[in-house]
Amino acid sequence: MKTVDLNCDLGESFGAYKLGRDEEILKYVTSANIACGFHAGDPATMRRTVRLALDNGVALGAHPGLQDLIGFGRRDMDISPDEAYDLVVYQLGALWGFVQAEGAKLQHVKAHGSLYNMAARNAGLAGAIAEAVYRVDPSLILFGLAGSELIAAGERVGLRTASEVFSDRTYQSDGSLTSRRLQDAVITDEDRSLAQVVRMVAEGKVLTQQQVDVAIRADTICVHGDGVRAVEFASRIRSKLSESGIEVRAFGG
Amino acid sequence: MKTVDLNCDLGESFGAYKLGRDEEILKYVTSANIACGFHAGDPATMRRTVRLALDNGVALGAHPGLQDLIGFGRRDMDISPDEAYDLVVYQLGALWGFVQAEGAKLQHVKAHGSLYNMAARNAGLAGAIAEAVYRVDPSLILFGLAGSELIAAGERVGLRTASEVFSDRTYQSDGSLTSRRLQDAVITDEDRSLAQVVRMVAEGKVLTQQQVDVAIRADTICVHGDGVRAVEFASRIRSKLSESGIEVRAFGG
Amino acid sequence: MKTVDLNCDLGESFGAYKLGRDEEILKYVTSANIACGFHAGDPATMRRTVRLALDNGVALGAHPGLQDLIGFGRRDMDISPDEAYDLVVYQLGALWGFVQAEGAKLQHVKAHGSLYNMAARNAGLAGAIAEAVYRVDPSLILFGLAGSELIAAGERVGLRTASEVFSDRTYQSDGSLTSRRLQDAVITDEDRSLAQVVRMVAEGKVLTQQQVDVAIRADTICVHGDGVRAVEFASRIRSKLSESGIEVRAFGG
Amino acid sequence: MKTVDLNCDLGESFGAYKLGRDEEILKYVTSANIACGFHAGDPATMRRTVRLALDNGVALGAHPGLQDLIGFGRRDMDISPDEAYDLVVYQLGALWGFVQAEGAKLQHVKAHGSLYNMAARNAGLAGAIAEAVYRVDPSLILFGLAGSELIAAGERVGLRTASEVFSDRTYQSDGSLTSRRLQDAVITDEDRSLAQVVRMVAEGKVLTQQQVDVAIRADTICVHGDGVRAVEFASRIRSKLSESGIEVRAFGG
Repeated sequence: MKTVDLNCDLGESFGAYKLGRDEEILKYVTSANIACGFHAGDPATMRRTVRLALDNGVALGAHPGLQDLIGFGRRDMDISPDEAYDLVVYQLGALWGFVQAEGAKLQHVKAHGSLYNMAARNAGLAGAIAEAVYRVDPSLILFGLAGSELIAAGERVGLRTASEVFSDRTYQSDGSLTSRRLQDAVITDEDRSLAQVVRMVAEGKVLTQQQVDVAIRADTICVHGDGVRAVEFASRIRSKLSESGIEVRAFGG
Repeated sequence: MKTVDLNCDLGESFGAYKLGRDEEILKYVTSANIACGFHAGDPATMRRTVRLALDNGVALGAHPGLQDLIGFGRRDMDISPDEAYDLVVYQLGALWGFVQAEGAKLQHVKAHGSLYNMAARNAGLAGAIAEAVYRVDPSLILFGLAGSELIAAGERVGLRTASEVFSDRTYQSDGSLTSRRLQDAVITDEDRSLAQVVRMVAEGKVLTQQQVDVAIRADTICVHGDGVRAVEFASRIRSKLSESGIEVRAFGG
Repeated sequence: MKTVDLNCDLGESFGAYKLGRDEEILKYVTSANIACGFHAGDPATMRRTVRLALDNGVALGAHPGLQDLIGFGRRDMDISPDEAYDLVVYQLGALWGFVQAEGAKLQHVKAHGSLYNMAARNAGLAGAIAEAVYRVDPSLILFGLAGSELIAAGERVGLRTASEVFSDRTYQSDGSLTSRRLQDAVITDEDRSLAQVVRMVAEGKVLTQQQVDVAIRADTICVHGDGVRAVEFASRIRSKLSESGIEVRAFGG
Repeated sequence: MKTVDLNCDLGESFGAYKLGRDEEILKYVTSANIACGFHAGDPATMRRTVRLALDNGVALGAHPGLQDLIGFGRRDMDISPDEAYDLVVYQLGALWGFVQAEGAKLQHVKAHGSLYNMAARNAGLAGAIAEAVYRVDPSLILFGLAGSELIAAGERVGLRTASEVFSDRTYQSDGSLTSRRLQDAVITDEDRSLAQVVRMVAEGKVLTQQQVDVAIRADTICVHGDGVRAVEFASRIRSKLSESGIEVRAFGG
């Protein structure tokens, strides 16, 4: 039986600011990427999110980002591989503190926003991130864009990796995501999204913008936690996968 | 044979800003309190300081502080016990990341500045800090002011504690430090400082401002890492203790 | 004819985080206290809020707070008068930049949260804040709690001041607000709030928790911008004041 | 008689961290670029630096940078023109607060680090910065790299501009600075630096790495405030210019 993981960015509130519908979305996903305080999140939110994920039986992951709270970690910064290594060790450790305090275990690490995107393309940053994760705990799973430099770096260093796919993004014939600067980067039709996801998991293929199929590895699916339809769509993905005979469970579970 | 630990605040540089004479002072102390990025320090400095301490055979400790970089964690803030718990778990975890990445082990936790002082007096904050340390790792040693609420809270929760004394501060007959707002709070005469320290370790007594002896427990001595005479004085303390037949070694060593 | 000002804290969003219902509340108030980036707000939010207030004909004020984004400026910090002076000059200047860029004029300064509360009681902090405002621009109006040290300091230094009252807080017989730690600090009954406000403006009196009237000066009324009933209540205050023959207009208008 | 301005980055200390030899260097320069708290500096440092510059008769300028304290504003960030506009208005306003509080006047604005370099090449960012400065105060002078997009944008928007040259950097035949990634980007020989500077001011020419002269406009010379030889070299530049019959004075003086 095919299996797949559903992951979601969580714990993105900060101080007086609330973001996301964590309580609801946690009912549908299997892996939580928990913000670690650099691009979003704060110590109290991390504590609460770890507990909430545990209460829902959702696997725990660190979601380190660039140190750019005002830009939500979404603005590329010209950081060095050493700086990427340090960012990841720090944030991964910080989240580990809360996980350890609950007597639980971390499953994975997924880089956030620009750090994720830069590490998908840049072998130097990818290698530094993989090294950071491996040195902190070689049993952690590294999440990364399917086919990316980060997945390659993770495997090179000896980590178990999970290749991530997107239900609501279109793909190019080289397996990359269509840039958000181009038209048709985002799939807004939910039925089309669901069909794409099922096919990626069941057949390991995606129909690209060039109208040709390419092979893609789909270990985990990115589910969004905000947006007016977020919770409803998470529920629909989960149902659709089950109906299609695909088991949804945490990647490392 | 009597033994005592010498601890020092280290890794207080930040970005382009350098602070302290870490390379030199590490030759004389046995426990390093490493800043964790809230009141001082940054991820790169933490990585370098962990490595430097290991190179010098100095035991590693987390030095969490208030989130007040501009005030160096020295301005009291009205935080709740929950906030203190979260601050400590986060920063302790972050440092643990770097320690773990080096394949090393954390020895202790010492709160910084206002967090240290508030937790010495305030049982609620003390309890929260002790709980945070215990839940992250019950084998960690909690450093605190000799006779303080923090030491009491650490023992209550089941942690091993190290009672800290100061060579360059005068004491009151209730065993507390003379407030810095009062005259004669600080001992500037080095010979008098050295004599006080040796007596605290060898006899477990200190002569107070009221000219009476009080009992004091001296597991670890606070050594300053900045100041024009810091390195020289650290060297003098170390020699004086040896001459007095006291072995200097890491508390948890 | 009696007049009164309605002021509201605005521009409290930060980066990806949205807070408050600024567009709606601006239809009812006459003075905007705009966050300046230390406890809330960011440069983009400040630009947008200044423009939005101008579009609604609402007078502009700086709302400087403690440098504690995670605590929303609501945790007391042991800052010195010099630090308070510097905080206010910096944030007031920063907002002035956006006001000046729109060819507009600043009307007032109101301290936020803990800075407001500490300056109400502490003459040293109050004097420093008043001095900061006066030195940047002596034509600015200083908002402060009616009967507070801050109002006294403002008048001493030569500033025009506006005494602020609260519709939803109860008062003590010395004219101070009932501490939020006590029961009955907050008035939840809207009709009782409205009646209190009208009486404060029309008669200059408030019935205290001790069931005696005390004199109070009501130049400006604090209106909350968040909460489920915020906009509706702002609308009700405005109507009630008009019905009571009280003109609502900006204090400096 | 030829004249030229000597500018220096100042006020780069932060909290407990001291940087630069401001007191000494202020004796030799004529324009101070004062850090505004985003990449360096803090409110107290800004107040002190404004006063120190005034005491030395040095003209005051704002030195806004990227919001990257840990990277000292030296890491390129993918910010939008709107974000650049907001950053500049905010920081310029903040410094204006301190200048106004001293009854003084701002002379100029110079972007810092990556913001300076990105705005030299990127017309969108350059336009946004020029617009920000103009809207806050059209009488301000915009400092920028000689021949850069920023100088062009400043002139287009109607600002007076000052073209900046470097004594210790080599130039390319298109008038740009040799990239620091290339060999020979920096001139370490002080006599050669001095000769280059005098020729740029006196003849309006610089010998490029390609061994051809190009025309260059030298309104203001960048003088470094840190480094072991900083103060001595500032003194030497000043003497050399005087000996060469060039008057050193603030650009807007």
